[in-house]
Amino acid sequence: MVNKVKLNESNSTRVRADDLQTQLSSIFRAVGTTDRHAEIAAKVLVAASVRGVDTHGVANVVGYSKNAEDGVYTVPQQTTVISESETTALVSGGNGIGLVSAYEAMEMAIAKAKKHGLGMVSIKDGHHVGMVAYYASMALEHDMIGMSMTTAAPAVRPALGAKKMLGTNPIGFAAPAGEERDFFLDMATSTVASGKVGLAHRIGVPIPAGWAVTTEGEEITEPPDGENDAWALNPLGNTREQGSHKGYGLAVLVDILCGVLSGGGFSNQLDRGENMSWVMAIDIARFRDVDDFKLMMDDMIRELHATPSLPGANRVLVPGDPEADSMDDRLANGVPVENGQYAAIRSRAAEVGVEVVI
Amino acid sequence: MVNKVKLNESNSTRVRADDLQTQLSSIFRAVGTTDRHAEIAAKVLVAASVRGVDTHGVANVVGYSKNAEDGVYTVPQQTTVISESETTALVSGGNGIGLVSAYEAMEMAIAKAKKHGLGMVSIKDGHHVGMVAYYASMALEHDMIGMSMTTAAPAVRPALGAKKMLGTNPIGFAAPAGEERDFFLDMATSTVASGKVGLAHRIGVPIPAGWAVTTEGEEITEPPDGENDAWALNPLGNTREQGSHKGYGLAVLVDILCGVLSGGGFSNQLDRGENMSWVMAIDIARFRDVDDFKLMMDDMIRELHATPSLPGANRVLVPGDPEADSMDDRLANGVPVENGQYAAIRSRAAEVGVEVVI
Repeated sequence: MVNKVKLNESNSTRVRADDLQTQLSSIFRAVGTTDRHAEIAAKVLVAASVRGVDTHGVANVVGYSKNAEDGVYTVPQQTTVISESETTALVSGGNGIGLVSAYEAMEMAIAKAKKHGLGMVSIKDGHHVGMVAYYASMALEHDMIGMSMTTAAPAVRPALGAKKMLGTNPIGFAAPAGEERDFFLDMATSTVASGKVGLAHRIGVPIPAGWAVTTEGEEITEPPDGENDAWALNPLGNTREQGSHKGYGLAVLVDILCGVLSGGGFSNQLDRGENMSWVMAIDIARFRDVDDFKLMMDDMIRELHATPSLPGANRVLVPGDPEADSMDDRLANGVPVENGQYAAIRSRAAEVGVEVVI
Repeated sequence: MVNKVKLNESNSTRVRADDLQTQLSSIFRAVGTTDRHAEIAAKVLVAASVRGVDTHGVANVVGYSKNAEDGVYTVPQQTTVISESETTALVSGGNGIGLVSAYEAMEMAIAKAKKHGLGMVSIKDGHHVGMVAYYASMALEHDMIGMSMTTAAPAVRPALGAKKMLGTNPIGFAAPAGEERDFFLDMATSTVASGKVGLAHRIGVPIPAGWAVTTEGEEITEPPDGENDAWALNPLGNTREQGSHKGYGLAVLVDILCGVLSGGGFSNQLDRGENMSWVMAIDIARFRDVDDFKLMMDDMIRELHATPSLPGANRVLVPGDPEADSMDDRLANGVPVENGQYAAIRSRAAEVGVEVVI
């Protein structure tokens, strides 16, 4: 089974999160972002690495900063309001770094929710936003519930379909607990995220049936090389009998809120690297006492943790547990950066002429 | 494979939707609901039957009206505001008929969205709301996007868990198209809705592996009889490898918005028959021109319909197609009501002393 590559002392280097923040923000600044945007972009990538979501972590500074340098991303960038009401906004990400647009959109949503209870922002002219649940989690410190989604160019087939038509269109959701860890859901609406198939290819291991099919509908267990139209990921549920119309339906829901509501376009209208997004903040205090809400969250989380597990299975987790475990370890002991990626970040820093601090 | 029972001329009777509305509302009135609430409850049940969702359709008038008569449901009922802001409300359904509370909550959400762009209502002290996507679809005629969710007592195991801890916690979502049919998603977050297992038991057919397991984790293919703790439905995704943490995560998301945000309680705190709910309305015009939105919806739907299908599979559908097909047929030719249910509705009408009009 393909899981995260296990990072260990021989294949990775531990780096303090603060040093990663310094290094990444200096690289972003060097390619033309504002100071504030450099800090934001670095923060989102470091947060993903700290949470163990390495596919969306610090190594992406290399590609993102090249895109900024090459004009694929517009920097310095502006998040521009196209239309706005008390509770809503449609913004253009100005084709800048996606992390920055989504972050600023969530700031707006939170500010609106503070004033009016709810805030919702749909984002067009956008690029890759990294770990989508990061933006949802920005709501937590404000005692709010956050939700976030993003689209991408086609990688996933519709239920019964034989062709890529939808992005993996992930959904993020975060809600604050009291003594327990916050609820944090970060999920693609496909059976598996694209990155896992690519990873399986790179490390040379087969993938399980149920993840991807050819255009003839044959199960793929030999992971295909790269992006092409000869195969597609399966929607969550995979077969009709097991609920593929549900994963598919959720992917279209994401397309509607991110792509159609923003006017930026649904998955099948997007080129690779284009991503439309959507964020929402909900002020819990408008509904009920925040402490009472958190107490009930704690009760729910404890009862879920106490569920007897299937024979042979690990203990029952709550969404957010793996990320929180990783955060505990990595904030204390440093973030393990895979050695190839570590070298790439260092040489990228040198290349753009900033001090190498990791 | 278990699908809907095929209703045909020999096992069902076609009844005009208008006559069903008259019959059902008269039954609800006879057990003590207000005129308006009788019309609402009947409308939601008839709408489900018209859309082919017979498990949540007109036959439920029998049980719901008995619950009202027996005091399990409080009638006449009131949807009471516990806390409210411009955009949000927490309401009590007053332990009345769930269909009525959810309907009135969505009316409030739409009114708030008209004034302020967004509206969200969380509902406690609630009962069964029937087809959850009905409430989302109430947004359509206002050129809004609607979303709705509801919880239930445990029927589904968490990922890796061996015990029922979550309701099937369905999600409804509706968005208006232009010339094409509106997008309409109505999905349980389990692999399959509870009703299908019960149906398989009644008609004596096996269920596919992947739908349910014993507390020992053994696949069930002989559909179990009734509700007990010896088995559980699987979350959408079923196995860890195929994404069971995603279906599980969505079920908890629903519990948070419906149960924890309302204070009514999460699934594991609910008794059978208790259901907390949540609805949201989004005013599209606050983001962009509604006609442009609908044109893009049409383009998306057409492209999805045009997707080549897997060898041997039917054509690719868009969520809402089966319901719209059913609506076309049933509004023109009458709603087929299974003969046992037809007799039960008629005798229930006689029992409560109203004219039998179907």
